[in-house]
Amino acid sequence: MIDQSGVRVRDEIEIAFVADEAATIPVFAQLARTVVNEILRGRLAPGQRLPSSRRLAAQWAVHRNTVLSALDELAAEGWVETRAGAGCWVSTTLPERPPPRGGARGGASAPGFAAEPGFAMGEPLWQALATMPPSRPGAYFMAGGQPDLRLLPREMLSRAWRRAVRDAGSKVLSYGDPRGALRLRRAVASWCAARRDLAVGAREVMITRGSQGALDLLSRAFLRPGEHVAVEALGYGPAWVSLRAAGATLWPVAVDDQGLDVEALEALARKRTLRAVYVTPHHQYPTMVTLSASRRLRLLDLARRHGLLVIEDDYDHEFHHEGRAVMPLASADAHGHVVYVGTFSKIVAPGLRVGFVVAPEPVIARLAQWRRAVDRQGDLTVETALAELLEEGALQAHARRMQKVYGQRRTALRDALGAHLAGVVEAHPTAGGMALWAEVSPKYDVERWSAASAEAGVIFATARRFAFDQRPRPFVRLGFAPLDPGELVACVKTMKRCLNEARV
Amino acid sequence: MIDQSGVRVRDEIEIAFVADEAATIPVFAQLARTVVNEILRGRLAPGQRLPSSRRLAAQWAVHRNTVLSALDELAAEGWVETRAGAGCWVSTTLPERPPPRGGARGGASAPGFAAEPGFAMGEPLWQALATMPPSRPGAYFMAGGQPDLRLLPREMLSRAWRRAVRDAGSKVLSYGDPRGALRLRRAVASWCAARRDLAVGAREVMITRGSQGALDLLSRAFLRPGEHVAVEALGYGPAWVSLRAAGATLWPVAVDDQGLDVEALEALARKRTLRAVYVTPHHQYPTMVTLSASRRLRLLDLARRHGLLVIEDDYDHEFHHEGRAVMPLASADAHGHVVYVGTFSKIVAPGLRVGFVVAPEPVIARLAQWRRAVDRQGDLTVETALAELLEEGALQAHARRMQKVYGQRRTALRDALGAHLAGVVEAHPTAGGMALWAEVSPKYDVERWSAASAEAGVIFATARRFAFDQRPRPFVRLGFAPLDPGELVACVKTMKRCLNEARV
Repeated sequence: MIDQSGVRVRDEIEIAFVADEAATIPVFAQLARTVVNEILRGRLAPGQRLPSSRRLAAQWAVHRNTVLSALDELAAEGWVETRAGAGCWVSTTLPERPPPRGGARGGASAPGFAAEPGFAMGEPLWQALATMPPSRPGAYFMAGGQPDLRLLPREMLSRAWRRAVRDAGSKVLSYGDPRGALRLRRAVASWCAARRDLAVGAREVMITRGSQGALDLLSRAFLRPGEHVAVEALGYGPAWVSLRAAGATLWPVAVDDQGLDVEALEALARKRTLRAVYVTPHHQYPTMVTLSASRRLRLLDLARRHGLLVIEDDYDHEFHHEGRAVMPLASADAHGHVVYVGTFSKIVAPGLRVGFVVAPEPVIARLAQWRRAVDRQGDLTVETALAELLEEGALQAHARRMQKVYGQRRTALRDALGAHLAGVVEAHPTAGGMALWAEVSPKYDVERWSAASAEAGVIFATARRFAFDQRPRPFVRLGFAPLDPGELVACVKTMKRCLNEARV
Repeated sequence: MIDQSGVRVRDEIEIAFVADEAATIPVFAQLARTVVNEILRGRLAPGQRLPSSRRLAAQWAVHRNTVLSALDELAAEGWVETRAGAGCWVSTTLPERPPPRGGARGGASAPGFAAEPGFAMGEPLWQALATMPPSRPGAYFMAGGQPDLRLLPREMLSRAWRRAVRDAGSKVLSYGDPRGALRLRRAVASWCAARRDLAVGAREVMITRGSQGALDLLSRAFLRPGEHVAVEALGYGPAWVSLRAAGATLWPVAVDDQGLDVEALEALARKRTLRAVYVTPHHQYPTMVTLSASRRLRLLDLARRHGLLVIEDDYDHEFHHEGRAVMPLASADAHGHVVYVGTFSKIVAPGLRVGFVVAPEPVIARLAQWRRAVDRQGDLTVETALAELLEEGALQAHARRMQKVYGQRRTALRDALGAHLAGVVEAHPTAGGMALWAEVSPKYDVERWSAASAEAGVIFATARRFAFDQRPRPFVRLGFAPLDPGELVACVKTMKRCLNEARV
């Protein structure tokens, strides 16, 4: 039965194989998989003898060494057994196996990689709202909150990254503190003390994956299914997704020209046992209103009386164009209710995914415990690079420069709206930020206007995209930060041209 | 009443202030906070007039400009109101407020930043086991699974990072695909096709924050509270934490010299409705056993019959020292039950936090949806840098080099154990990996031995640290990857010296 001579033996099995020259898998591995497939299909049964390597080489039209490599691989994996001089069998220890069902790719005989999961997928994640309109090449993107990355000194970043890897080396490339690089925690603490009136040290700082990472971590660490959380009725959807993902039930609270309506929150707190409230007091997202001083005090007082966790998302602290930046709620909170969330996404780049939490030390410790489960730790190299740039003052200098640039762009957009869209949009007065919130005349349908503008190359968001109730409102949010004054004028002119299609 | 002349006025309030020279907060901000604190304490009531800036400058012994800066800040934040020529009042719109309770830092009168949270913290996260023994400077660290970062070409990484920022620029620094940089997903798909017999494309690949990020994301996306998940009885604790954090109930399944006991798993599946099983088939963690071919088939068959999700953690695929690497379970799974998890932590560096999932496209889509909530996306710069190194073959070359180095170190450790600890430890035969699993003679207490060795500067892990039941067993895991042969010999000699303290 052993075919030493190359003569075809009667009970020898024929294994079809055509090498796929385009495949990225080497031929020997393709051969091995072909054999495995035949075993999985049940065509090659445990104990069945394979043709000799010479016969297989002839059958398959490949070099005998390629066959031997394939058989070595199969033997190493336990699919076949070889005995010197005696040949090669399908392992007798393999169980019998039914042929695969449908859903497989790569032809009828090869199981390939499944196109569909074999396990039940369960429910998808709750979606807060329609996501932002997608950007596309060549279009002006006024939705979202991007900074102007064209003005970011990239070489400065590269040099800092390189120095971090060179000087800290194994330390930043290895396992480390889930709270983040100590050097960055220290630098953030000093920065918060100097610029945000938060008298904290490194122990009260945790570095996170952007503000989203902070919000998600806070939600997981402190919310339990069924707990009630208040959010702004016009607000930041991605935060709501994290809160909901942790099982919270969300309650929208109205927002007006002083920010969150704290009286309405108080009324809600009397009806429901609130666990937490998520707020954007500095520049309310998306309306850009600064929470008034009296509401700040009321909110802190409410938090104290109800034992609330207040998540303060201060995503664009640096960009206050009139007067000084208003200090965070957290800076006036003596009772440990406010957990403060900041980010480097707006002053450096969103792609770095670095943000931070400032909170009492026991809160940071709890977050660190969860962080080990989430992704073990952050990227210590990027964190160390940012620490260096903060220590040097380079980031602060960049932030100041961008504050000035964005202030000019805000004026440019206001002027362009006044010149070309007077009576159509009225921008609300705001003290800072990277976008304008503007009311649109009832003569126009904002949704149709937004769609027509996007078609014409100017993408902006309407109020509906931020509304907890998902209902349209006659407001638009116009992000000016990533566009220079000339581009902003071009945007406004395009928007004006699209008005006809939006007339009610 | 208005003190233009600098004469002290009778009803003027005295506000105590001593500048904290050591503070990182500028004096004007300290002043402003002092006033806010007095408002929060209720000492300065709404409508109360403040002393003139000259008087305050005299009271506080600071320059008048500093006082004006503080008052500007207070006015900008709405704490005070100013009227030109008439002075400055505490805003009349502020509500009355009770004084803060205890728990505050920074002295009795200043609220400062709270040391303790004001909200209920709830339960801490479940801890699978004692964490690894901590590393410490100067000690040899044989616990954990670190690669030797001394041998990583860091300049290669820096150059790739710099090129990614320079060439892809705004694209990698901005918001992007939550599945990861397309370029890396393509490179990983090709690499998996070539080296892991996974015939997949970029659509079936998602980049994650290391394997921990993948395990946590999978747990959140596919497990619901109360569902049953099987895990290896000696296994990887951090994975269990993620599974438990998603609400799963875990069931340990025995591991023997062929890896996971699939018959025991089958018995469990008859008793409980299993949702998923978490396995390390390539080099079982921590015992380093390769799951036998017959058990692989049985496991796939079981998964098919019970509709299981099989999470295959192939954390050290490259480091197989004898024969070829055994191909993943996923490569033989035609029915979409296996979700494959890989990582760059072992072949590049853990600190980069880059891993990946290979799964049918609908699974990747669901993970991407969750990813938006978790941290929005990965670090596209690091991902692009790794893509380039994979495309160039530089990472594969580094992996081959390290495979050779680790093979030599494995031999060195085996030899050293044979020379110095014969009769005390017996290393199990394994085909690869970055650690040896060894049985310890009953004459010695492993826990005491490990403690004494750590004291003497050699840190290694005992079986207890991997045991679901947390009970001690006479086994140790000796990681050799980050130590050169000379260091390994030094470790073994130190371990030998510590034996006396471990004698039963």
